[in-house]
Amino acid sequence: MRDPEELPSGIHPLLAGRFSPYRFDPSAVVGDRALGLLLEAARWAPSAGNSQPWGFFTGRRGEPDHGRVLPHLAPSSARWATDAGLLVVTLTRRHVDDTGLLYSEFADHDLGQAVAHMTVQAQAMGLAAHQFRAFDMEGLTKELDPRPGWAIVSMIAVGRALGGPPEGRGRRSVADLLSAPWTPGE
Amino acid sequence: MRDPEELPSGIHPLLAGRFSPYRFDPSAVVGDRALGLLLEAARWAPSAGNSQPWGFFTGRRGEPDHGRVLPHLAPSSARWATDAGLLVVTLTRRHVDDTGLLYSEFADHDLGQAVAHMTVQAQAMGLAAHQFRAFDMEGLTKELDPRPGWAIVSMIAVGRALGGPPEGRGRRSVADLLSAPWTPGE
Repeated sequence: MRDPEELPSGIHPLLAGRFSPYRFDPSAVVGDRALGLLLEAARWAPSAGNSQPWGFFTGRRGEPDHGRVLPHLAPSSARWATDAGLLVVTLTRRHVDDTGLLYSEFADHDLGQAVAHMTVQAQAMGLAAHQFRAFDMEGLTKELDPRPGWAIVSMIAVGRALGGPPEGRGRRSVADLLSAPWTPGE
Repeated sequence: MRDPEELPSGIHPLLAGRFSPYRFDPSAVVGDRALGLLLEAARWAPSAGNSQPWGFFTGRRGEPDHGRVLPHLAPSSARWATDAGLLVVTLTRRHVDDTGLLYSEFADHDLGQAVAHMTVQAQAMGLAAHQFRAFDMEGLTKELDPRPGWAIVSMIAVGRALGGPPEGRGRRSVADLLSAPWTPGE
């Protein structure tokens, strides 16, 4: 358990109850409708000039696309991410193509918003999401081969959480959020 | 009105009902508790290795800090953002300090998640948020003077929306989200 004083108080339950599980129920399935709603939630995120600089590759346990992703997980993430019903690879469109022309300077920022939307929607459906970077970026990029301008950023394991929030996931204080850009703090 | 077929269906109301208003109620106030919950929501966003690479500068209408930000708005954003009860400047910590050592390669991505959390929390309190980049970045950076490693990314106007969603804010289809990184689409 986290220190109760460290639990978010007063914020919406979908935000307060969110955590990144290290254990997923290996028998829980992410159905077609749930998958569709996760993508629909991401789709309606805001973005700079409505540029929508995001893309996704998805695979559910047992699907061929799941099998394309699995071999690239690091052992540290494979331990728990393999049990999740769904793996999502997130992609950002930083450039228009291979000319180096910028597509959006907010590409990664806005992908983050879309991922947060997806996470909130997962939470609303009784699912949980754990984002991670512990995978072979070079190998996965070679496997998925996105076109120029697009880059893989992260992976997300989505499924039914087993157990509660991990320990030691405290946060900087609100006061520090407001002062850290000016004064070294916590 | 947007094309009804373009309205999000089935996703959580806090996500489906969200839009970036171009008109704010100039008489509506963002109270202390609401401001605290917006920051609390941002605070509990997930981030790579729990790095929390975000910071905020806030000013409410009538506060001196609001006055520090206002002169740097572009005319195009001043038209509507001035009426919002709260202006938030978002900052990302990309580098540790001025040595160029990376603090987080996911800094902007994770700031985006914190901003999305803030937006969902605003929505839950009957408020709305409109992010924008139409301001004098150089002037505002000089005014706020964040320390090395930190950079201003965007501003957010938060307040009570007047009117409904603007027109023409459609989205790429879910199918395109899944194919665009590989095949030029919509």
